[in-house]
Amino acid sequence: MDDLKATASARRKDITLTDAFWSGYEKLIREVSIPYQWRTLNDEEISGEPSHAIRNFKIAAGLEKGDFYGFVFQDSDVYKWLEGVSYSLEGRPDKKLEETADRVIDLIGRAQQPDGYLDTYFIIKAPEKRWTNLCDCHELYCAGHMIEAAVAYAEATGKTKFLGIACRLADHIDSVFGPEPQKKKGYPGHEEMELALVRLFRATQNERYLKLAAYFINQRGTEPYYFLEEWEKRGKTGFWTGVHEQEAFGVSRLYNQTHLPVRKQEKAVGHAVRAVYLYTAMAGTAAETGDESLLAACRRLWDDVAERQMYITGGIGATHSGEAFTFDYDLPNDTVYAETCASVGLVFFSEQMLQMESDGKYADVIEKALYNILPASVALDGKHFFYVNPLEVWPEACEKNPDRAHVKPVRQPWFGCACCPPNLVRLVESLRSYLYRVGPEGIFVDQYVGSSVRFTPGGASCTLEQKSGYPRDGGISFRLTLDKPAEFQLALRLPGWCGKASLRVNGEGTDCAGLLHSGYLLLRRTWHDGDRVELNLDMPARLMAADPRVRADAGRAAIQRGPVVYCLEEADNGANLSALSVKRGTAFRTVTDSLPGGMPALECEGFRIREGEPGGALYRPYAPSEEPVTLRAVPYFAWGNRGKGEMAVWVRVKE
Amino acid sequence: MDDLKATASARRKDITLTDAFWSGYEKLIREVSIPYQWRTLNDEEISGEPSHAIRNFKIAAGLEKGDFYGFVFQDSDVYKWLEGVSYSLEGRPDKKLEETADRVIDLIGRAQQPDGYLDTYFIIKAPEKRWTNLCDCHELYCAGHMIEAAVAYAEATGKTKFLGIACRLADHIDSVFGPEPQKKKGYPGHEEMELALVRLFRATQNERYLKLAAYFINQRGTEPYYFLEEWEKRGKTGFWTGVHEQEAFGVSRLYNQTHLPVRKQEKAVGHAVRAVYLYTAMAGTAAETGDESLLAACRRLWDDVAERQMYITGGIGATHSGEAFTFDYDLPNDTVYAETCASVGLVFFSEQMLQMESDGKYADVIEKALYNILPASVALDGKHFFYVNPLEVWPEACEKNPDRAHVKPVRQPWFGCACCPPNLVRLVESLRSYLYRVGPEGIFVDQYVGSSVRFTPGGASCTLEQKSGYPRDGGISFRLTLDKPAEFQLALRLPGWCGKASLRVNGEGTDCAGLLHSGYLLLRRTWHDGDRVELNLDMPARLMAADPRVRADAGRAAIQRGPVVYCLEEADNGANLSALSVKRGTAFRTVTDSLPGGMPALECEGFRIREGEPGGALYRPYAPSEEPVTLRAVPYFAWGNRGKGEMAVWVRVKE
Repeated sequence: MDDLKATASARRKDITLTDAFWSGYEKLIREVSIPYQWRTLNDEEISGEPSHAIRNFKIAAGLEKGDFYGFVFQDSDVYKWLEGVSYSLEGRPDKKLEETADRVIDLIGRAQQPDGYLDTYFIIKAPEKRWTNLCDCHELYCAGHMIEAAVAYAEATGKTKFLGIACRLADHIDSVFGPEPQKKKGYPGHEEMELALVRLFRATQNERYLKLAAYFINQRGTEPYYFLEEWEKRGKTGFWTGVHEQEAFGVSRLYNQTHLPVRKQEKAVGHAVRAVYLYTAMAGTAAETGDESLLAACRRLWDDVAERQMYITGGIGATHSGEAFTFDYDLPNDTVYAETCASVGLVFFSEQMLQMESDGKYADVIEKALYNILPASVALDGKHFFYVNPLEVWPEACEKNPDRAHVKPVRQPWFGCACCPPNLVRLVESLRSYLYRVGPEGIFVDQYVGSSVRFTPGGASCTLEQKSGYPRDGGISFRLTLDKPAEFQLALRLPGWCGKASLRVNGEGTDCAGLLHSGYLLLRRTWHDGDRVELNLDMPARLMAADPRVRADAGRAAIQRGPVVYCLEEADNGANLSALSVKRGTAFRTVTDSLPGGMPALECEGFRIREGEPGGALYRPYAPSEEPVTLRAVPYFAWGNRGKGEMAVWVRVKE
Repeated sequence: MDDLKATASARRKDITLTDAFWSGYEKLIREVSIPYQWRTLNDEEISGEPSHAIRNFKIAAGLEKGDFYGFVFQDSDVYKWLEGVSYSLEGRPDKKLEETADRVIDLIGRAQQPDGYLDTYFIIKAPEKRWTNLCDCHELYCAGHMIEAAVAYAEATGKTKFLGIACRLADHIDSVFGPEPQKKKGYPGHEEMELALVRLFRATQNERYLKLAAYFINQRGTEPYYFLEEWEKRGKTGFWTGVHEQEAFGVSRLYNQTHLPVRKQEKAVGHAVRAVYLYTAMAGTAAETGDESLLAACRRLWDDVAERQMYITGGIGATHSGEAFTFDYDLPNDTVYAETCASVGLVFFSEQMLQMESDGKYADVIEKALYNILPASVALDGKHFFYVNPLEVWPEACEKNPDRAHVKPVRQPWFGCACCPPNLVRLVESLRSYLYRVGPEGIFVDQYVGSSVRFTPGGASCTLEQKSGYPRDGGISFRLTLDKPAEFQLALRLPGWCGKASLRVNGEGTDCAGLLHSGYLLLRRTWHDGDRVELNLDMPARLMAADPRVRADAGRAAIQRGPVVYCLEEADNGANLSALSVKRGTAFRTVTDSLPGGMPALECEGFRIREGEPGGALYRPYAPSEEPVTLRAVPYFAWGNRGKGEMAVWVRVKE
């Protein structure tokens, strides 16, 4: 790998967030969602589905009597919450919250078994069945989430108790799985452990963890098929159905990406969250080992996701059935899945690729998810969440057509399978991970988020201060504070959506075109204290089209302004959004609204098909009568905050 | 009821079919489908799913050893085949086929139990469980199909053996169910028996059968809930899952129309076939009893189906889940169900309503089903069938997106649940049932199908000869042969799709407007031998729109010519039909093709969005580049006969 590529995220601790848009979300998550989720994990919130997750740990630790309750992966909700808390504490210390976290960590430690094993389901329900059903039972998945949380907590607080618990669990797992003859040849049914092991390696520099990650990755998709073997050993029973039949041996090999060895996988298939977690681990492992064939597979798979199987909102997973990818250009807007967790995983995967490849396309996808699907998945009240993130909603269809029952027209207070809310929490609170990368060449600004970052180019002590109203407007300014002049490269991403940008260094205009390399404007010079850089990204609202092979979007446009995708809502435009069309070539007016980050609503010209007389024929000669109307669009991330109603991202275009 | 309404279908025996379009289908079904299905029922065809239906009867009759195989309603496939054979023999005697039918009837008779009971599943598998699970187990459904077949066979051949078997079964059922204290208070889980009992009453004039039909209809949806009671009596076990849990007590009350007493039902809900079979029985019972409240419910339910929940092809049932209706204007074209059987049932229901109300709207819906969804459900080879009849097909999505797995892009040789193929057979072979109605006023011509019919207006002996190239063209001529002059009304339906018609009586033009009443042109006069009537229905190809509340069809048009809906196929227009639009106001050219009935293909002006360069961005500024193209459309009934490919009925319109 050449130097250009050898970047790493700037340390979160070196970054201070000052962004109008993200500080609001970060605060909402910190002040509302984290306490709300804590109460939920303790069953003190009664609005949503019960959790019981903390009680499971207490029972496993012998502190309370009772039965395990919840999904077999219920532990992971606690770990993900702790991970989110870690990032929150790192950004803004909070003694009381840290004490709560410490108590949970104590509890986790007390539930850990003498040999390091920890999974409350198996401790409580079936200790003799440990590691007998990797395909269905998520022990390695939960372990991975514990490791991620423990690494984050250590990085945030400097305390290593949780990391010790995690290492003991990882060491135990390393003693159970591996190439040695006495060890099991399995790998996770739901990928997650692999990426966590890469993180654990990075935090501890213990090579065994990287080796185990690589082992799990390399075993996947090989013959003989481990999941079939373990099923036969179990007496041919499945966990989910309990039935002694072939069908009980669940899932197709596509579902959990075991259809081929990973280096032979050409297409993103199966359960979308599983897939992107696997790819994240593959990319991280490739980065740490220099494995070119693994990197090549990652490139192919990333392109397949981002260029053929991704919604304009950054959502992935076109079908409810298996929460899965389907195939190229199959992106239905109404029967969509687009699970929140899958886009969180897509951010992880893209970030790993960005660190290796330093290509702006990866940061573009992160940006797309950050300003669209991810904030959309949480209500402006911080207490309601989407699991499925549709691009078109007809509430009556969600309620009366079972094919759309998985699409909720309003955010839910909690879920029986509650993977998404804490995943969103940890993503938002760890936003600082995705803003800057530092390498030998200098610094890359990947995301335009108001913040300052400390780094040390060529031994100098430097603070880069970024100010912007992004994504409300495209004016971004940087100011450097340096203890001595230093030569390094300041690389500013030119977003893929931006057709026109201007750049000034210390007030002097600079031609962008000559500076552009792989999506970044590369400013290499000797920088001095007080130097200023101003980047202006032209950010007109405009109509976007999908590739014509996306059948669902043919003849339609989405409204986008900068990275922000807009949508129409019934609250602004009345019922039956399908009767609306947007006028091709329309101008857009920005309209002040009370949206996060001061984002404007947009108004433009459109048409509405008049409804026929009541009792008119269901089918009649084509002669629609249309009236001109003003359409009002709001950012997709803010939809569904004004009661239940229709929503549409893709709108018919009228010439 | 006034005289105008008191009509009945002309006797099939009095009609001779001479139609170019329908004689072809009738021959295909007779010469290919009936023998093919016979071989299938005997497991002599190996291409599709196994049937075993005849073997089940042999085993039940003690003639062979073995187990029952197939669905619990497997018997009905044999009965429906026999019913289709009956109509075929009636139209065209065939000694060999009749001998085969007689042998099957003998077999059925030998399987019948001494008390009249007959259902091979229960005889073979669980004789002690008779009548313990009406909700799931289809005993009454199978009995209904036997009765329908027996009535048809008696009408066709004059032989009464089968009718005797059916009456013994009906009498047995009458001894088991009814208001008397010692009888069970149940009713069919899948409606069918009710409409069969009305037919049996009409054939035998035995009032007990009508009374039992009314009993089943009136019991439905009452409290206490019979299906819950029988489930509790069974020890709370369900047939389909075998699980002792509440969920095993399957289905919602909407699914089988037990949510309300039938007179209180306002909306067509649940399993579409069940629903229209029930409504058919309700209408038939209302006709025979003069029950106005039942008739009012039928009117409401028919309007709800035809005006808010029916596809332009005559398909009904918007979702795979429960093969069910969803709600008003929810008519997705791709995830559609539109089961063949449901449209067969819609024809039954509409015919019953037509006999009572004599309103052309009912005949219009029959016509819609007859020229679109029903012939579409059988391949031009007579050996492949659709169960689901989509309006939009993307074969790759059917294969790779599980949400569309129920939509088969090509017709199948057979089905495990094989209700549809024999249902189509009996419908086509009984087409003569839907052509004419005769009443005190005269004769109604409901369908424009080349044929002659004998009737006796006011004691005269009359033959009405109808000639037409319908639906290829709209010119229809009638000639009367009379043994003496007779005054009566000749009523010719003016189809709802027809905007302009002209009428000549014995060469003299007549103003249509003054003759129009409830969708019929009423010609009342003293008719003489040799009188001629010429009706010309203007039949331009044109674009049709759906009510704007049909979200799925917004901005789209379907091409229709006369009653025939057209579609685009990949075979004519290349892949990615979603990239195509039709030009608003386009002219249409008819193009000779080799289609049934000499039907033309159509060509018109349209546009195709050019596909971007390979590797282009998935989302890009809206600037589609379009090229003018000639679109070629073929009748929907003929789609899918040229290999696997895309198909679309609703096409985007470009202004």
